[in-house]
Amino acid sequence: MERFLSVAQTVIERCRALAEFTEEPGFTTRTFLSEPMHAVHGCLRAWMERAGMTVDVDHAGNLRGRHAASHPNAQRLYIGSHLDTVPRAGAFDGILGVVIGVALVEILATRRMTFEIEVIGFSEEEGVRFGVPFIGSRAFIGDVDDELMGRGVGDAVTAFGLDPTRIPEAQASPNALGYLEFHIEQGPVLDSLNLPLGIVETIVGQSRADVTFEGHANHAGTTPMNLRHDALAGSAEWISAVEHEACSIPGLVATVGRLDVSPGAGNVIAGSARASLDLRHADDNVRRDAVGRLHGATRQIAASRGLTVRWEPRLDQPAVAMDSGLTHLLGPHHKMTSGAGHDAMIVARHMPAAMLFLRSPGGISHHPDETVRTQDVAAALETGIGFLERLDARHV
Amino acid sequence: MERFLSVAQTVIERCRALAEFTEEPGFTTRTFLSEPMHAVHGCLRAWMERAGMTVDVDHAGNLRGRHAASHPNAQRLYIGSHLDTVPRAGAFDGILGVVIGVALVEILATRRMTFEIEVIGFSEEEGVRFGVPFIGSRAFIGDVDDELMGRGVGDAVTAFGLDPTRIPEAQASPNALGYLEFHIEQGPVLDSLNLPLGIVETIVGQSRADVTFEGHANHAGTTPMNLRHDALAGSAEWISAVEHEACSIPGLVATVGRLDVSPGAGNVIAGSARASLDLRHADDNVRRDAVGRLHGATRQIAASRGLTVRWEPRLDQPAVAMDSGLTHLLGPHHKMTSGAGHDAMIVARHMPAAMLFLRSPGGISHHPDETVRTQDVAAALETGIGFLERLDARHV
Repeated sequence: MERFLSVAQTVIERCRALAEFTEEPGFTTRTFLSEPMHAVHGCLRAWMERAGMTVDVDHAGNLRGRHAASHPNAQRLYIGSHLDTVPRAGAFDGILGVVIGVALVEILATRRMTFEIEVIGFSEEEGVRFGVPFIGSRAFIGDVDDELMGRGVGDAVTAFGLDPTRIPEAQASPNALGYLEFHIEQGPVLDSLNLPLGIVETIVGQSRADVTFEGHANHAGTTPMNLRHDALAGSAEWISAVEHEACSIPGLVATVGRLDVSPGAGNVIAGSARASLDLRHADDNVRRDAVGRLHGATRQIAASRGLTVRWEPRLDQPAVAMDSGLTHLLGPHHKMTSGAGHDAMIVARHMPAAMLFLRSPGGISHHPDETVRTQDVAAALETGIGFLERLDARHV
Repeated sequence: MERFLSVAQTVIERCRALAEFTEEPGFTTRTFLSEPMHAVHGCLRAWMERAGMTVDVDHAGNLRGRHAASHPNAQRLYIGSHLDTVPRAGAFDGILGVVIGVALVEILATRRMTFEIEVIGFSEEEGVRFGVPFIGSRAFIGDVDDELMGRGVGDAVTAFGLDPTRIPEAQASPNALGYLEFHIEQGPVLDSLNLPLGIVETIVGQSRADVTFEGHANHAGTTPMNLRHDALAGSAEWISAVEHEACSIPGLVATVGRLDVSPGAGNVIAGSARASLDLRHADDNVRRDAVGRLHGATRQIAASRGLTVRWEPRLDQPAVAMDSGLTHLLGPHHKMTSGAGHDAMIVARHMPAAMLFLRSPGGISHHPDETVRTQDVAAALETGIGFLERLDARHV
């Protein structure tokens, strides 16, 4: 690993340099095809070309650099992640995976594998600009539809100097070998285990719902406890039930992150309370069973308090497994699930995909304090080179 | 009671007619010395004068009509309530007590008691216009200070055609005999007991606090349950503890009516949650003991979850007892506490006060659907006449 430390340092410096390209001075904010994305493309293109790669930007705004194979008509391995950020982001979420891809090609230098390597920087993953995530990787798998274009994506593509009618050309090569993504964990698991790297076996499935309790707004002084229909007290009991369910099932996470109380005055019993529910697990059956139990508990809590409840499902997204054969080539690292969605989840629909997490110190991400350790990047580079060599050996 | 039914019908019709005088067409909204208060004064003055009363408006905007005693230099009994309303109010909160006062004098007609009767319509109780309640009754007991005037009250008084420098003249007569207030219950207790009237023994004391839990905002997908510091989950446990405490102590009511969650996104664990606490009981020791236990439980909940908590006391208002001698004259009605503040609470600091509640059908108040039953008003009139006769007999 020692031999990769200086490259790792360079990787981190490049990420920090790219973080300067922002829509908001003093922070890193870079949404889909925003003006500073031109500069990001410019820098990455320069590093790619210096590494001997052939560089293009497709018409979905994905930056793509190819490292030729040892023979013509070879299959192609994609290594990528995304170039956009959330508002006031850190310097590593997404772009680290692209910069590591370029660094792996630099380490290979003139060495050719039995497969082409294409490093791809997806134009959009976070869903900030148009409220819909994964525009880059969806174009890459041919999943851009009129609904998406109608949101203004086409105009943004044109404004960036690209041609929205040519977005279909962004599709992956038909002889794709697979996809590898490096990404910070964005969670505290590896840090709490004191491990630098983790292999993603599955990206969790997710259920979302809006849950609204309706009671009666009443005077906080004149309404005895036994005559209340308090929507907030009912919601509180329900939030505890959600937490209890999640703590009872290994691997389940459940979150109530939003709660809007009406009328929301200190001296008025709440008449209604509207909550979000977000529930994730790697096993879709476990997740759906938990949703079913919670749905029942919700009705029971409401009935016992003389409240009505409305449960509105918002999302039922299945878990996505990474490819076990490709994943095996990453070596013997800690196996884990990803609780967040990633480009690999989209790409996995169309080709074998593998994903390696780098420890997020403190579990911090989507925040300027987001960081990554040089040693961990070096370990990721070593794992990446090992992956390429094992794939090359398998492929010969 | 039958003989008062037609007067009761008139009382209700007058209240509904006065509800037409509003700042917001289609609703009843009438704040301190707002323009429609002139018309309310005009109508009430006409009814008072027709009943032979001598009418004034004091410089705090209180409307005052006097019915002479059987002899000069008699003591004075005040009968009153307030003329202002909350926004989009019903037709009875406050003004019913004034209209009943006028009706009692009409029933007495030329009959003189051993005491003067002054019916007083306080200019302000709800605290809507300047964020401070009881302006009328505070002036009546000589408790108007510079802080209150500085909020704009003086300008409002001038704009209404009165003289703020003469507000001290609004003070009650030094030979006041006592104060009697009729008011709708604004709660469901009498309705649930199927009783028309209730005698207020005590107006509850009240504690208010703002309670803020601080944890760590984190990704809802990538943060395992055991590594969370979820401010909303902590608040939910606390709200249940508040409810449990209130349900365990007879007569205690405790309400969390406001809860502001930050950042408040469905896929982000709440980093902070700020709640209101409102706690009331007729016995100040019971109330303060409950606050102390809850304060301890709050710290315990926060500590067990790795949250910090800030408890900011906002109010510690003692309970106010009505005068037992005066109350006794109301006869053998159901005894209860008032969970809401009323003018009687202010006036009781300076003279014996008694208060009679009329049933609020459905417990509804501060709402256009607020109502009162004709039979209940008739019962209140009968109780009022009985009160005046017993006081007269005692006083001879």
